[in-house]
Amino acid sequence: MAGFDHREEHVDEGMLLIQANLDDMNPEWCSPISDKLFDAGANDVYWIPIIMKKGRPGIMLNVLVNEERLEAIEDVIFAETTTLGIRYMRAACHRLGRQFVTVETPWGPVSVKAGFYKRELVQFAPEFKDCEKAAKEHGVPLKRVYDEARAAFLKLHR
Amino acid sequence: MAGFDHREEHVDEGMLLIQANLDDMNPEWCSPISDKLFDAGANDVYWIPIIMKKGRPGIMLNVLVNEERLEAIEDVIFAETTTLGIRYMRAACHRLGRQFVTVETPWGPVSVKAGFYKRELVQFAPEFKDCEKAAKEHGVPLKRVYDEARAAFLKLHR
Amino acid sequence: MAGFDHREEHVDEGMLLIQANLDDMNPEWCSPISDKLFDAGANDVYWIPIIMKKGRPGIMLNVLVNEERLEAIEDVIFAETTTLGIRYMRAACHRLGRQFVTVETPWGPVSVKAGFYKRELVQFAPEFKDCEKAAKEHGVPLKRVYDEARAAFLKLHR
Amino acid sequence: MAGFDHREEHVDEGMLLIQANLDDMNPEWCSPISDKLFDAGANDVYWIPIIMKKGRPGIMLNVLVNEERLEAIEDVIFAETTTLGIRYMRAACHRLGRQFVTVETPWGPVSVKAGFYKRELVQFAPEFKDCEKAAKEHGVPLKRVYDEARAAFLKLHR
Amino acid sequence: MAGFDHREEHVDEGMLLIQANLDDMNPEWCSPISDKLFDAGANDVYWIPIIMKKGRPGIMLNVLVNEERLEAIEDVIFAETTTLGIRYMRAACHRLGRQFVTVETPWGPVSVKAGFYKRELVQFAPEFKDCEKAAKEHGVPLKRVYDEARAAFLKLHR
Amino acid sequence: MAGFDHREEHVDEGMLLIQANLDDMNPEWCSPISDKLFDAGANDVYWIPIIMKKGRPGIMLNVLVNEERLEAIEDVIFAETTTLGIRYMRAACHRLGRQFVTVETPWGPVSVKAGFYKRELVQFAPEFKDCEKAAKEHGVPLKRVYDEARAAFLKLHR
Repeated sequence: MAGFDHREEHVDEGMLLIQANLDDMNPEWCSPISDKLFDAGANDVYWIPIIMKKGRPGIMLNVLVNEERLEAIEDVIFAETTTLGIRYMRAACHRLGRQFVTVETPWGPVSVKAGFYKRELVQFAPEFKDCEKAAKEHGVPLKRVYDEARAAFLKLHR
Repeated sequence: MAGFDHREEHVDEGMLLIQANLDDMNPEWCSPISDKLFDAGANDVYWIPIIMKKGRPGIMLNVLVNEERLEAIEDVIFAETTTLGIRYMRAACHRLGRQFVTVETPWGPVSVKAGFYKRELVQFAPEFKDCEKAAKEHGVPLKRVYDEARAAFLKLHR
Repeated sequence: MAGFDHREEHVDEGMLLIQANLDDMNPEWCSPISDKLFDAGANDVYWIPIIMKKGRPGIMLNVLVNEERLEAIEDVIFAETTTLGIRYMRAACHRLGRQFVTVETPWGPVSVKAGFYKRELVQFAPEFKDCEKAAKEHGVPLKRVYDEARAAFLKLHR
Repeated sequence: MAGFDHREEHVDEGMLLIQANLDDMNPEWCSPISDKLFDAGANDVYWIPIIMKKGRPGIMLNVLVNEERLEAIEDVIFAETTTLGIRYMRAACHRLGRQFVTVETPWGPVSVKAGFYKRELVQFAPEFKDCEKAAKEHGVPLKRVYDEARAAFLKLHR
Repeated sequence: MAGFDHREEHVDEGMLLIQANLDDMNPEWCSPISDKLFDAGANDVYWIPIIMKKGRPGIMLNVLVNEERLEAIEDVIFAETTTLGIRYMRAACHRLGRQFVTVETPWGPVSVKAGFYKRELVQFAPEFKDCEKAAKEHGVPLKRVYDEARAAFLKLHR
Repeated sequence: MAGFDHREEHVDEGMLLIQANLDDMNPEWCSPISDKLFDAGANDVYWIPIIMKKGRPGIMLNVLVNEERLEAIEDVIFAETTTLGIRYMRAACHRLGRQFVTVETPWGPVSVKAGFYKRELVQFAPEFKDCEKAAKEHGVPLKRVYDEARAAFLKLHR
């Protein structure tokens, strides 16, 4: 597959899952906190609705990150959230080989991310940004751009 | 069924479901807010985790109340939450006939709430407070008290 | 589009959204309760995690149904759940025109449901049952069957 | 309060709450769909995690809008989501009087939105955009900007 | 307790909790994915609603499995979901001793699963399948079958 | 800062995160179960709504505790919930230095908890109980007490 940007499948044993339960924080801050955590090296950031002490509807911050970045992530969490403590657990990440290939749609080229497991193609997903841009520029529904991009990829790599 | 406290099955057409989406409130306040809303005449108060503008993990306050109490509920919501607006929809409530009967358990008497639909017994539930009190006083698991109270009711009203 | 099974777009004004909050029910019963509600004429049944009085993690049952079926639905809810009351609100449903068309995939024919808004095709979705059957019989991932069915439909109706 | 941008408290009886249950949609599309719905006149857009038929983890789209905008909202929902139908319920919205006042913080001026119920100040909230901008430009935690803005407002309007 | 099917209480140190965040997957696929994961040896499979990057309402797949089955589970996850990576953490499972005993109800025999902690009976739960079958065959509410089965077990093993 | 109650920042490596999935438990029991778990030494207890086998809306119990307390926590979980097994993962907790300082509000003194990261003040939060007490005694909204307490702390420790 010429033109692909290769990245190899691998297992990363040195990851941490960092968690903080927040029961007294303004939820408006979640989005900029996520941005700062990604800037500090987080591989993933997500939030889970939970029920805390006294039945409070809290939110749990989750950050997946390499153990070398622990302190950088803590710097952000303690500066930007309201928590008085975090916990972390060791985790391993198994990431597929990833490649990008460009396909043609009626509204221009779209990049598609492909995932390889044991050297076989198992995933492909049109890039959100490309599809959104095409949809906006041509005034078509986003879902149509996805459909055409998927069909185009499928035709090439069936 | 002598000793029962009767209350008739009925439909109440004049109810409102009041809702407010909260994306900037300290969740610690939810529990005292619920208390105040019940004091102001709410028939039910509950909270739903939602996802708001910019992906914020918000909470939706729900209050079920008779339309005559709308203003009393609004007084609480606007004083105690952070919302700048509420919405409400007309609703009808169909409530079963309710009766209370006392049953004996190995740890003393427990009140059981029974529900009647079209004059037939369809529900029964041991009262939480009674079971919790018995469990605490006798150092037995709460679930055992529930089990014995349910079995005792079943034996009487099968 | 010959071979299509036509059903017209319409608005149904006489619908009800029926809700019951459950804070003391065994969640194992949810799935058979849904089945019975669909049998009793429900157009849709879904469940929402909520936080109830005293911080209890409850579930809210939602049933969308024509007002003529109210009593049949209540018969199921009061017989099968633990609730002592329900509420309902008037609702209107706007349903797209629906047609089914069969497309060919490498693993046999699959039915695709198409949706029409103002006489234009806006939706299409491979039928879950057909895709699942094809995936099982041929030992291929379900997602591949969906992809091929979508691409096949797109080729016909672009 | 000179310098305020007045907007009167009012009740709007002609609102609709529009809902669509989505059990087969790519969640990546939610954010641009929200944007388009706000562009089409929605007063609010939010998403609720639900459990649908066959135990599928679905999402419910909610749009609060004036009844005059129903068709414009439907145009977006049917074009951009995967649903084959929507439902809507009549609702009334009670909105507080709103005013904006500028306060000084150590990192520059921030606009604060104030809410008035029965002509009394009951709410105030620093504007997210202003706080985020100040936090970014001065490299301080967002929460500190909020704290200073709130304290500054409190000092003026206690 | 003659007639019981004994299985001993134990701690299994070699378990993994495998997780994948899905923000671009059709939720219709969750149920067949769960089935395949159980077939591949999963001890438990469950889904958690989460909020992902850009405020997307995602779902987190969780699989609890013995470390020897890691690859078999990964084969299913990468083939059937849309994820480009998984993570896993080491976990220990403490499982109670389990026994099954049959009790009589007015609608026939029902199997009850009993759980033993430090050789004492702490749990008992009527088997869902038996109760559902009895309820269907005799046209009685499922909850009544559970109640009678629980009362029958309690009578025997108080 | 004279008058502060010092407690040092530290990392505790010997923590466990204990989890149990509950799909057949009466949610009324959650609150007293939390109380008992805190009594048995839990550092934190929280609940997460999940979707379990056959699409059941379950709840996951989470307990964060020092590994020395594992058995005491298990005693509560197996006695009070309906689970037949638990799982646990090793975790480390990083807790900020904590101090309490009293501030004056228009409704009397309120204790504020302060958090220190690398010896710098990063968090402060008025104590819920003090604020709630002041709000009740003086008939003012809880949020106003929080605001004044935060402003008072800010004035002292800017």
